[in-house]
Amino acid sequence: MRFSNRIQKMNYSSIRKLVPYATEAKKRGIHVYHLNIGQPDIETPSTFIEAVKEFNEPVLKYAQSQGLDNTINSFRKYYKEWDIDFDYDELLITAGGSEAISLAFMAIADVGDEIIIPEPFYANYNGFAQVTGVNVVPFLTTAENGFHLPKKEEIVKKINNKTKAIMISNPGNPTGVVYTKEEIRMLADIAKENDIYLISDEVYREFVYGDDKYTSALYMEDALDRVILIDSISKRYSACGARIGLVASKNKDLIKQILKICQARLCVPTIEQLAAANLINTPKEYFDKVKKEYEKRRNVMYEKLCKIPNIVCEKPNGAFYIMAKLPIDDGEKFTKFMLCDFNHNGKTVMVAPAEGFYSTAGLGKNEVRLSYCLNCDDISNAMDILALGIEEYNKLNK
Amino acid sequence: MRFSNRIQKMNYSSIRKLVPYATEAKKRGIHVYHLNIGQPDIETPSTFIEAVKEFNEPVLKYAQSQGLDNTINSFRKYYKEWDIDFDYDELLITAGGSEAISLAFMAIADVGDEIIIPEPFYANYNGFAQVTGVNVVPFLTTAENGFHLPKKEEIVKKINNKTKAIMISNPGNPTGVVYTKEEIRMLADIAKENDIYLISDEVYREFVYGDDKYTSALYMEDALDRVILIDSISKRYSACGARIGLVASKNKDLIKQILKICQARLCVPTIEQLAAANLINTPKEYFDKVKKEYEKRRNVMYEKLCKIPNIVCEKPNGAFYIMAKLPIDDGEKFTKFMLCDFNHNGKTVMVAPAEGFYSTAGLGKNEVRLSYCLNCDDISNAMDILALGIEEYNKLNK
Repeated sequence: MRFSNRIQKMNYSSIRKLVPYATEAKKRGIHVYHLNIGQPDIETPSTFIEAVKEFNEPVLKYAQSQGLDNTINSFRKYYKEWDIDFDYDELLITAGGSEAISLAFMAIADVGDEIIIPEPFYANYNGFAQVTGVNVVPFLTTAENGFHLPKKEEIVKKINNKTKAIMISNPGNPTGVVYTKEEIRMLADIAKENDIYLISDEVYREFVYGDDKYTSALYMEDALDRVILIDSISKRYSACGARIGLVASKNKDLIKQILKICQARLCVPTIEQLAAANLINTPKEYFDKVKKEYEKRRNVMYEKLCKIPNIVCEKPNGAFYIMAKLPIDDGEKFTKFMLCDFNHNGKTVMVAPAEGFYSTAGLGKNEVRLSYCLNCDDISNAMDILALGIEEYNKLNK
Repeated sequence: MRFSNRIQKMNYSSIRKLVPYATEAKKRGIHVYHLNIGQPDIETPSTFIEAVKEFNEPVLKYAQSQGLDNTINSFRKYYKEWDIDFDYDELLITAGGSEAISLAFMAIADVGDEIIIPEPFYANYNGFAQVTGVNVVPFLTTAENGFHLPKKEEIVKKINNKTKAIMISNPGNPTGVVYTKEEIRMLADIAKENDIYLISDEVYREFVYGDDKYTSALYMEDALDRVILIDSISKRYSACGARIGLVASKNKDLIKQILKICQARLCVPTIEQLAAANLINTPKEYFDKVKKEYEKRRNVMYEKLCKIPNIVCEKPNGAFYIMAKLPIDDGEKFTKFMLCDFNHNGKTVMVAPAEGFYSTAGLGKNEVRLSYCLNCDDISNAMDILALGIEEYNKLNK
């Protein structure tokens, strides 16, 4: 039996495909520090779990296609705290940020249209693009420059009459970059001057450290008709398994169009929506504590990284990832080596090889993404083991 | 700002677009009997709700992309009761039957490819087709014939080199038809002879009345590499708001391909999956009771329908819908009339005009779908009001 061309062209998740090696290592009794995934270990707020347990309807009914009123209004309240005003009909609840991205792509781009994205970028953007027949056109950002944006002309030259949007993740996954106000301003200008959309994935909004400041694309008041916000509770509230996100825009007509697809897929789970609605009652201290914890972890990881000879890495101020150029030849080979052929006192480390975050072939070969979703002691141990692993790997490869 | 052609071509749900008129009627104090939607009023089994309340993990983590082991294995156990054997890697948990349909379309068809479906069919099949760029090619079934399949040659003549699958809903939404073993055999033969898939949406499996017998497409053992099963707990367990479904096939390579899309969208909600897994512990009596209740309702509705002069309708033996040709000129106009201009002692009825269930323009104009998701007394009252409404409507239209 034949499969469609579109599905045959898709790749398996570059992160998830190495997981079997980790599973094998564990079977051999090796402890694996997972620096490869963005699954936070932080507790989900009790506001969520309590609302789940309070569900008391005799019939678990369909929700409205746009989302439950409570959930929509709870998000509106949340955005107000960030000086973002959304009307009721400007946001749609989605099955995580993932569905929000697919919906945005389908609503603004036809098969063969292009969306430009700074690379490295979140690997699944490629997946959503492949599924929807949209071509991702990357422009390069580099570890040397802390993954900040290139000059305007470098971006503009990627635009042609098939380009429908620029898309960013801010703060960035996998880079941890926090774009400056000037950078967001530049992107809004490019979007306006070229009559394209600006898709801003801001799921890591809460995680900005040091003196950096989060600038929402929605702060660009003269470009609001073309800004599409992607959001999710997954990282913010350590609730990845809830699959509650949203797509939002001040362009009400766009949201009305997207609602058509939402109606076809009927709705997002009722119980998870009710629980997500109650997250607005999470005390402010929850975020303060979580943010402080991540900042500490980032510092531990970054300091240890800097001690590895010949590493290239700027200190990132957002999300919970560090992208680093390691003194190795091939991130995927190295990751396999760490899982299959190396351990230090029965322990090893799994990292995410960065090639999957690039769409230009050959880029990112010696880079890896490290996620700091473990506690400081574990991160410290993991980084020591990583350093030893690099040494050993290069010895064997000489 | 421009929108994509694909989203502009999509329609709003034909059922949901009339809901505002019902809302207005209620504001005027009118009681509306909803015969328009397939939202069961039956209680969700306590096995589901109990499992929800038992969730006790500190962190609500991502699930595996293919679904939780427990959930997959619970479905496998369920199918065994229906003499269907699935290996672990032959099914993927999805966000309701809706996502399962999209995944199947994307995996076997490219943009411009065709899937043939007996019409009338579940309106959202059109939505999923539009989103994925697949063309639905209908072949006709009629109220006069109880919506059973036409002769083989009528179906085969719709097949060309772009055809990738035949798709059915069995028992049928909106028709209530239960296909005979011979009909399913014929479809399997057509699929084999023309090297296409057979997509079988069997979410109403439990709801077969009288002497009719459910025949799964998976009973056609010589065609198993081309059968794709769509399923969902929504109707079976009155858990529409859970959004748990699955796509399954004995064709393991196909499931492996679909897993790529599942990885891009990460996973289905963890708590809902845990709760769905526990549904296997629902006592057998739950189904017996529910089935008996629906059968009673069907009988009440059908008997009342038969008393309306000049109606065309065969007694359907499955699901919880009746499609009927009413002695009216236009189902949509009539539905609006019932909601805006008619009431009997402060009560009226909302039906689903059938045009949205046809993809051939002009068909189904005088048909409506009635869902028996209300208790017998309400159905009885609603049908009396419907009869009076038809009389009044035709008087005014003379």
